[in-house]
Amino acid sequence: MPGSSFGTLFRITTWGESHGPALGVVIDGCPAGLPLSEQDIQPYMNRRKPGQTRYTTPRKENDTAELLSGVFEGYTTGTPISILVRNTNQQSKDYSHLASVYRPGHADYTFDAKYGRRDYRGGGRSSGRETLARVAAGAVAAKLLSSFGIDVLAYTSAIGPVSLPDSLQAESRVFKRSLVMASPLYFPDSAASERAEAYLSEQMSTQDSVGGIITCQVTGLPAGLGEPVFDKLDACLARAVLSIGAVKGVEFGSGFSAASMTGSVHNDAFYQTEEGKPAKRTNHAGGVLGGMSDGSALLLRAAIKPTPSIARPQQTIRSDGSETELSIHGRHDPVIVPRAVVVVESMVALTLADLLLQNAVARMDWLQKIYPENTNP
Amino acid sequence: MPGSSFGTLFRITTWGESHGPALGVVIDGCPAGLPLSEQDIQPYMNRRKPGQTRYTTPRKENDTAELLSGVFEGYTTGTPISILVRNTNQQSKDYSHLASVYRPGHADYTFDAKYGRRDYRGGGRSSGRETLARVAAGAVAAKLLSSFGIDVLAYTSAIGPVSLPDSLQAESRVFKRSLVMASPLYFPDSAASERAEAYLSEQMSTQDSVGGIITCQVTGLPAGLGEPVFDKLDACLARAVLSIGAVKGVEFGSGFSAASMTGSVHNDAFYQTEEGKPAKRTNHAGGVLGGMSDGSALLLRAAIKPTPSIARPQQTIRSDGSETELSIHGRHDPVIVPRAVVVVESMVALTLADLLLQNAVARMDWLQKIYPENTNP
Amino acid sequence: MPGSSFGTLFRITTWGESHGPALGVVIDGCPAGLPLSEQDIQPYMNRRKPGQTRYTTPRKENDTAELLSGVFEGYTTGTPISILVRNTNQQSKDYSHLASVYRPGHADYTFDAKYGRRDYRGGGRSSGRETLARVAAGAVAAKLLSSFGIDVLAYTSAIGPVSLPDSLQAESRVFKRSLVMASPLYFPDSAASERAEAYLSEQMSTQDSVGGIITCQVTGLPAGLGEPVFDKLDACLARAVLSIGAVKGVEFGSGFSAASMTGSVHNDAFYQTEEGKPAKRTNHAGGVLGGMSDGSALLLRAAIKPTPSIARPQQTIRSDGSETELSIHGRHDPVIVPRAVVVVESMVALTLADLLLQNAVARMDWLQKIYPENTNP
Amino acid sequence: MPGSSFGTLFRITTWGESHGPALGVVIDGCPAGLPLSEQDIQPYMNRRKPGQTRYTTPRKENDTAELLSGVFEGYTTGTPISILVRNTNQQSKDYSHLASVYRPGHADYTFDAKYGRRDYRGGGRSSGRETLARVAAGAVAAKLLSSFGIDVLAYTSAIGPVSLPDSLQAESRVFKRSLVMASPLYFPDSAASERAEAYLSEQMSTQDSVGGIITCQVTGLPAGLGEPVFDKLDACLARAVLSIGAVKGVEFGSGFSAASMTGSVHNDAFYQTEEGKPAKRTNHAGGVLGGMSDGSALLLRAAIKPTPSIARPQQTIRSDGSETELSIHGRHDPVIVPRAVVVVESMVALTLADLLLQNAVARMDWLQKIYPENTNP
Repeated sequence: MPGSSFGTLFRITTWGESHGPALGVVIDGCPAGLPLSEQDIQPYMNRRKPGQTRYTTPRKENDTAELLSGVFEGYTTGTPISILVRNTNQQSKDYSHLASVYRPGHADYTFDAKYGRRDYRGGGRSSGRETLARVAAGAVAAKLLSSFGIDVLAYTSAIGPVSLPDSLQAESRVFKRSLVMASPLYFPDSAASERAEAYLSEQMSTQDSVGGIITCQVTGLPAGLGEPVFDKLDACLARAVLSIGAVKGVEFGSGFSAASMTGSVHNDAFYQTEEGKPAKRTNHAGGVLGGMSDGSALLLRAAIKPTPSIARPQQTIRSDGSETELSIHGRHDPVIVPRAVVVVESMVALTLADLLLQNAVARMDWLQKIYPENTNP
Repeated sequence: MPGSSFGTLFRITTWGESHGPALGVVIDGCPAGLPLSEQDIQPYMNRRKPGQTRYTTPRKENDTAELLSGVFEGYTTGTPISILVRNTNQQSKDYSHLASVYRPGHADYTFDAKYGRRDYRGGGRSSGRETLARVAAGAVAAKLLSSFGIDVLAYTSAIGPVSLPDSLQAESRVFKRSLVMASPLYFPDSAASERAEAYLSEQMSTQDSVGGIITCQVTGLPAGLGEPVFDKLDACLARAVLSIGAVKGVEFGSGFSAASMTGSVHNDAFYQTEEGKPAKRTNHAGGVLGGMSDGSALLLRAAIKPTPSIARPQQTIRSDGSETELSIHGRHDPVIVPRAVVVVESMVALTLADLLLQNAVARMDWLQKIYPENTNP
Repeated sequence: MPGSSFGTLFRITTWGESHGPALGVVIDGCPAGLPLSEQDIQPYMNRRKPGQTRYTTPRKENDTAELLSGVFEGYTTGTPISILVRNTNQQSKDYSHLASVYRPGHADYTFDAKYGRRDYRGGGRSSGRETLARVAAGAVAAKLLSSFGIDVLAYTSAIGPVSLPDSLQAESRVFKRSLVMASPLYFPDSAASERAEAYLSEQMSTQDSVGGIITCQVTGLPAGLGEPVFDKLDACLARAVLSIGAVKGVEFGSGFSAASMTGSVHNDAFYQTEEGKPAKRTNHAGGVLGGMSDGSALLLRAAIKPTPSIARPQQTIRSDGSETELSIHGRHDPVIVPRAVVVVESMVALTLADLLLQNAVARMDWLQKIYPENTNP
Repeated sequence: MPGSSFGTLFRITTWGESHGPALGVVIDGCPAGLPLSEQDIQPYMNRRKPGQTRYTTPRKENDTAELLSGVFEGYTTGTPISILVRNTNQQSKDYSHLASVYRPGHADYTFDAKYGRRDYRGGGRSSGRETLARVAAGAVAAKLLSSFGIDVLAYTSAIGPVSLPDSLQAESRVFKRSLVMASPLYFPDSAASERAEAYLSEQMSTQDSVGGIITCQVTGLPAGLGEPVFDKLDACLARAVLSIGAVKGVEFGSGFSAASMTGSVHNDAFYQTEEGKPAKRTNHAGGVLGGMSDGSALLLRAAIKPTPSIARPQQTIRSDGSETELSIHGRHDPVIVPRAVVVVESMVALTLADLLLQNAVARMDWLQKIYPENTNP
């Protein structure tokens, strides 16, 4: 299926290029009866918007979400929700010199290899601006999830070599949203945030860029979400998060560390809570067992590569194959991580909204709650 | 969509439980005209089969693939290919005591949470035996890819704390199949293999289990495979590989290391080969740019958790919520990695076969090669 | 997506050729907790089986359904249900002379045009035997629907020019299953059945074949099934029924007659029943308004073409393009209609089962019945 | 999958309500390199636009297509094509009295039954205005098909009881576009058109509405389009056409007439043309054999019900169940047929564009034309 749709039952389709007239998203399959307005969407857009701190591009993008369908008298109607964002700050002339050169670390060459042509203005479809549509839809998914007590929160856990201290990275650690929002880099720890800011300033002074790690926690998930075999919860989340341009790896719970653990260490023991519920003593699994949520907090970490657009000179080739040197000037983020935090959060929310709906048809006894009159005795 | 299908155009559907009468797979969308017989499939099955070395379960599983449809006079016909494997060594009584207890690290609890019931014999649908169907289909995908010069090879790069030396883990390193097959653990390095075997023996003597890392390399990929946005090559591969039960993380190229690199280090410079083709000086990207193959070798690493079934006593609960202690005796792999190598290889091959077909309809000039008579001047 | 799958949430994949070792179906997405055994499936298979009356082929096909997965202790588990039917009466030599000739009215030429090759034995994948897998799955869908009080019943309403009298064809007419089963041709009217039998005998004596019309009624459907826009109830049913080889047209309610009615005649007036429920005075709409079930009986009619295999000589060509004359001897049904009745019933049941599941996620208030603990106040 | 998407590889998603701010469509999967501009789309929009003749609603809808993405320097880029149409002539107050009453023949009741709420203004999502998005996308599909010599033409073959003469309805009859466009009702016969206009005027004078039949012919189709089993060419087209609100039946070639033919009459004999190509003497099959195009003209007929909105008083109920009488005044089409002609044409074009792409991956030898360098000898 063409690549601009995501989800099965809660399904989005995004469209738009960096320097076209607009970008947008259509959400199909949002259940009827969810209270929704543009006020639910704009705050997510604002978290992604550049120019908020000195660590993001000074480009001004006035990203206003226009809600065009699917909502009536304040509630979703069950029909597609279309959200449009006009591009208002396109400077296409900035990019004309890139028409026939392949920027290292970007999709210029691969787009040409695939399609035989590309919109080279600002990366076109492969621009980070595409994520704006994901965030608009993610806001709707997050609103849906919150109706069921599910909360998705992403934060920065590393910028370059500066990480959260190990004590704050235990698989069972859960942070508050306010703590994350207090840091300009979305670190849930002010000391780490300050160290990262210092590191970042240093790299910016040498016209270089840096990467980092984003962690996403989900609380309030009922057990059983995710479909066994190919649509496992972690498999679906990995695809979702790796579909974000700069992500180079994803892990759950102990992740790559699990590879060097023994079974007796990695296995999480079950116990019964005082309320009589099943629970786990540890969370090396990161909240997923056999591809389904296990009732613990879900924990996912995503590796973000350094911004590929740098002012330093780089060796590359032109579309005719000839070699050249390229320095990319312009308004680029020295680090993508802080702006990507809400994108990760959105992709996780979209995945969970879809799996929440898919899970609802797993059992006869649940269907009988929906179709009671039609159920035989 | 229900979770037992994978792929869009080259699409598989698997079925079967560990202790049911049989397991199998239906492959729909394999192009007509591929030479195929059971002899193409059985070698993949044999690589997955237990009992080959002292590091795998001594269970004897006589996994014979029966090809039931879709092939006529030695070639695929374009219709669904059904492959069936009878279960012949089921010892259902082994498992009856697990009917009402939740094994730590397994899907017992989550299956019950989702469906309200489960086939508890040998893990039922969540058993590692389910991967047998993936491997049968993977053999067909690999055969298809090899017709286009694409080769998929997975190998072991770590068992517990024992890793391939760094010099052998460069993103641009490519191994030969014969070297991998020479090691009982599928390490492409005999010294590392021996160290890993020693470590493994030690853990087996303490009734514990270990994890590891599997790397997969793909050579011969044309540039442009993968669909921008949500069905990026790396996103699809991540989902494919994380859908294997024991995988806890996936990374591409430099992966998590990229998070602490700067852009000037991570970006791969382009140059022109002597044959006039675009190429990259390094491969930190792991062969994927903007979600599409870039013509370099593809490099993926998957973290495998330690086998959850261990003989050591573990704390857990029963399905009624009460607490209990559990020791899992029986015939279990002390490490899943060696048997999972061919499963990773299969899931990568299945993903690439699907994306190869999807890519074929990306351009008008390609379609005109297929429908020449109908093309207007 | 490759063509051998049907459905989104209740999803089937069929496979197998007429003269291969076996045919079968995998049902993925059947909710857990449905009581199911081979005894639910075999009766549907038997209704489709040839050799039951003198009006069907005397071929003996011993079609025994083997249930291989997805059921444990008498209930579905939510995992894929695989059903296998071995071919036991293949006479491949019967068909070798058809390897290079295109039978009029069959798919021989189009299969070659598409795939460049075909399994020519007994029609291969395009054989009517493929419907056996649909019927096996249809039995499961019908069992699921019956749990919710929904009953699907197909019957013959015309054989060649012999139709049910108009008085029995009103859109609001609903028949009992026992009445239908009393006729060897599945006419719900013994007089029409006898006239049709006479007509059929006459055509058989001249080595010709005949077509007919199958009507399908569905009672007990809740209002609201079907998805607005492209997956309308009638659109989905039409695809389902026209995917049966011999069907050449489908209509709902007044169908083609509606084209010559005026709005004041065709519109069905609403009224309130004594129990206070919405109802319609007439049913020209055939139970569907705006692509959703309206609570009335659903009424669908399908036109079946005459069997293309006839012993009379026909003009045709060989695969090399040369012209030839062909007489098809062998064991062919003089009319497909009676055996197709259960196939239509199965395809309708499969469509409704899928839409029943899809509809369950349409509303927030329904989801809150399923996830009550997680719902915020 | 939610109901507002259509197609697998050439895939559209529509959105928008009759009285919301806008409607639109996203086309994902259009191959790169197709010349495309708003000038290709607007003529299709204009054919659908009301107010062109006295037989359509006098509402003025200024339907201007805005092309927002997916096209660069005059060619498609392979990325999603978003088309937006602003609603400019909404008179929402016209509809407020319909908030709590169910119009006979409309989707008011079923929308409420499904979603528990609806946008009642002008039918909301179930309005005929939704087809505007299909037509915009259909224009793109038709442009794609025309690049391969495939031409889709729909026309009116009946208005109420006034039909094209039988001699003009032979299954092998093919009309020119100019002939169809010469009639205000899109009849390819001026005498029939005049009789139909007279009949229509008569019904309009009695405040009633009428239905009709639309025929669609496709020429230039290569043989082999359509996927065997469930995605047969005719099955897909039937779904496509029945997804248009007012359609109540679909048939191919001889259609329902085939039911009363014998096999010796219905079978189309093959012969070899002077150019050495396979052809058929007759076309009772309507251009489709075994679910695939057979190289003849494709012929499909769709029954359109009379417009349900009529000024005559009708019995109905309110949403609280109470009974009432309703007269629908306002600006409604006395017949939907002429405006639906381009909608049928669009849905057929969309279906064929999708199947053209799907068919391209059916054979190894075709794939080898696309990936020649990678193909092994």
